[in-house]
Amino acid sequence: MQNKFLHRAFQLALEHSSDGQHGPFGAIIVKNNEIIAEGWNAVVASNDPTAHAEIMAIRKACHKLGTFNLSECTIYSSCEPCPMCLAAIYWARIDTVVFAASHEDASRAGFDDSFLYEEMSKTWMERKINAFREHQDEGKIVFKKWIDNPLKIDY
Amino acid sequence: MQNKFLHRAFQLALEHSSDGQHGPFGAIIVKNNEIIAEGWNAVVASNDPTAHAEIMAIRKACHKLGTFNLSECTIYSSCEPCPMCLAAIYWARIDTVVFAASHEDASRAGFDDSFLYEEMSKTWMERKINAFREHQDEGKIVFKKWIDNPLKIDY
Repeated sequence: MQNKFLHRAFQLALEHSSDGQHGPFGAIIVKNNEIIAEGWNAVVASNDPTAHAEIMAIRKACHKLGTFNLSECTIYSSCEPCPMCLAAIYWARIDTVVFAASHEDASRAGFDDSFLYEEMSKTWMERKINAFREHQDEGKIVFKKWIDNPLKIDY
Repeated sequence: MQNKFLHRAFQLALEHSSDGQHGPFGAIIVKNNEIIAEGWNAVVASNDPTAHAEIMAIRKACHKLGTFNLSECTIYSSCEPCPMCLAAIYWARIDTVVFAASHEDASRAGFDDSFLYEEMSKTWMERKINAFREHQDEGKIVFKKWIDNPLKIDY
């Protein structure tokens, strides 16, 4: 049987990518069997490399529900989320992710998903990107002040 | 000698987090020795779990430069970017990342960074989040249509 929510994610991916300006990815967020938000890739169209389908759907759902916490929600995505989107899903406390294509499928279509998963599993010193760590002690002081801040809101 | 760009990232983190509504993270993007954009964590204040310092700085820099490609840019962050932000840095094609605190330091201050790095290195079946793959063949069709789309803009 067709998963109607995944089907909607496919529709979004196909409709928006037909102009060649939107990557072929769609995602929706569902709560209590109701679609809360829909997203599609808009990296090229909006000059925003973070405008992936899942990120767009998360932002819209949070705006709609007035919260940064999407627990009790499920995200349906036409493809396995890339590391950026997967980490965003965790930060948003989404319960469940349902996807269709794999990150290997995405990579075969020209996207960096598999490469990014490889990079994530390395230490910062081993990654391909140039990386430098400086002033770690001062960086720790920033956190120390946060830990001691009585006004802080944890998330 | 103090790295003036990291110092600015610390300033942003400290200034904005003093109200307890903005997580203690700051980031700036530099091109040709000039600050292009500044970002700070606004997850709670804007109800957006993707509003991390690096993501905010990337979005602003892309908007300012009118491009989704930040090659030849360096990002300075008060802390090692989390997987969401690190993957965003790769998608934005940023050349170099300079950071101070480690993801272990962030975790000791109450953030999930180290847990997320562990999750990224697992397959989707091994992760803690509920995950399901369905309709993979239909997901692949979405990419097949993209590959065959003569209008597509690669990024």
